[in-house]
Amino acid sequence: MNMRSGRLLGLGVGPGDPELITVKALRLLRAAPVVAYPVAKGRSSNALAIVQEYLRPEQVLLPMVYPVTIEKLPPPFCYETALRGFYDDAAVSVAAHLDAGRDVAAICEGDPFFYGSFMYLHDRLAERYETVVVPGVCSVVACAAAVATPLVYRNQSLTVLSGVLEADELTRRLAACEAAAVMKLGGNFAKVRAVLGSLGLIGRALYVERATMATERVLPLVAVEAATVPYFAMILLPGTRWDGQGAR
Amino acid sequence: MNMRSGRLLGLGVGPGDPELITVKALRLLRAAPVVAYPVAKGRSSNALAIVQEYLRPEQVLLPMVYPVTIEKLPPPFCYETALRGFYDDAAVSVAAHLDAGRDVAAICEGDPFFYGSFMYLHDRLAERYETVVVPGVCSVVACAAAVATPLVYRNQSLTVLSGVLEADELTRRLAACEAAAVMKLGGNFAKVRAVLGSLGLIGRALYVERATMATERVLPLVAVEAATVPYFAMILLPGTRWDGQGAR
Repeated sequence: MNMRSGRLLGLGVGPGDPELITVKALRLLRAAPVVAYPVAKGRSSNALAIVQEYLRPEQVLLPMVYPVTIEKLPPPFCYETALRGFYDDAAVSVAAHLDAGRDVAAICEGDPFFYGSFMYLHDRLAERYETVVVPGVCSVVACAAAVATPLVYRNQSLTVLSGVLEADELTRRLAACEAAAVMKLGGNFAKVRAVLGSLGLIGRALYVERATMATERVLPLVAVEAATVPYFAMILLPGTRWDGQGAR
Repeated sequence: MNMRSGRLLGLGVGPGDPELITVKALRLLRAAPVVAYPVAKGRSSNALAIVQEYLRPEQVLLPMVYPVTIEKLPPPFCYETALRGFYDDAAVSVAAHLDAGRDVAAICEGDPFFYGSFMYLHDRLAERYETVVVPGVCSVVACAAAVATPLVYRNQSLTVLSGVLEADELTRRLAACEAAAVMKLGGNFAKVRAVLGSLGLIGRALYVERATMATERVLPLVAVEAATVPYFAMILLPGTRWDGQGAR
């Protein structure tokens, strides 16, 4: 490791409310000469919006622009290949600053290692550069707070699933769990709701969009219009309330 | 709701490092006239230790003293009954301050709704008093940061389990998951390690004690002495690194 290189800082900035950044991430963010942020092509960056008020004018902003935002592409295009190329390119851009001795704060919604975009930079750069990862408030617990409902009691298990999974796999996993969070809804919402319906779980499910952001919405599952569901929506199945009568 | 009552504030203070509190929790903590904290009888409070440096001398400290610290008691004692009584008593103590118009900051390690002691206060008081819950950095993501390893990629699922579960149940659940965190180790460690061994997962498992605290330790699973494992230890099974070659 070249000791004159900058440090790679993976900073979880929390679920959306700028106040849900940690004191540590805020300190490192403000001290970093370069701030790298993920942004989908043609859109604004959620991660950047979260920290905007904390940035100093002299900080260099380094956008890492996602090539595509949906996962199903017509042949010969392949999302996985495009994404891999994007991360390779982003790592090169970040490394240029590190090589020049500048710390780079790579900001990440929620937590860096919990489905965070930072993971792919980490896999490409952490062996070569000193790396600091600051955990953040992840969306699952932010959603539980938004719906004012405890998520897991005592010795209950929690399963976190991606809405991208096929219906039969979702069915099998949701049938076996005591508490669950289904993330990455967007276009997968109608499928997930149908699975919950088939399992008789609609009544227990809680739906949250953009938890802790100014645009947060909490809706009954039956009231959700599938076509309007954003990627940053989640369904929670909280664990059964513990009444003090048993080990769970 | 009596509008002159104080507010119940459930504040996640993060996994251990005082800097991993959020800006919001810190603001509400410092403004609250009363700070309620959980503490096991005869021990010091981890939650209080995390926020100690932020407290003001004039704040009233309200200890909520756990009656027992282990889950298996000889008859006629019953841990569940004792615990229920403890939470009932704690709720009464907190409610007395709320009724007097004082906000009570109930601090909680990690996140309030993720196995947090605050959940039991919430269940007893949230219908009667205005309640604010501030999510926190939970131990699972803090441990992933401690071992510098991404936890879940793309559409992988994460299962969070309690080490208290029986060996056969742990076996069934761990065999079916892509990434996992086993919490509440303590005296359950030897059982959990044996299960991981039977599943051939020892090599993938990462062991962390007291993540982000000054006493944090990361050890290879085979090097851990079972008798020394604290309750605040965790085993992580991170998801397989995504190499850009498939949908996961």
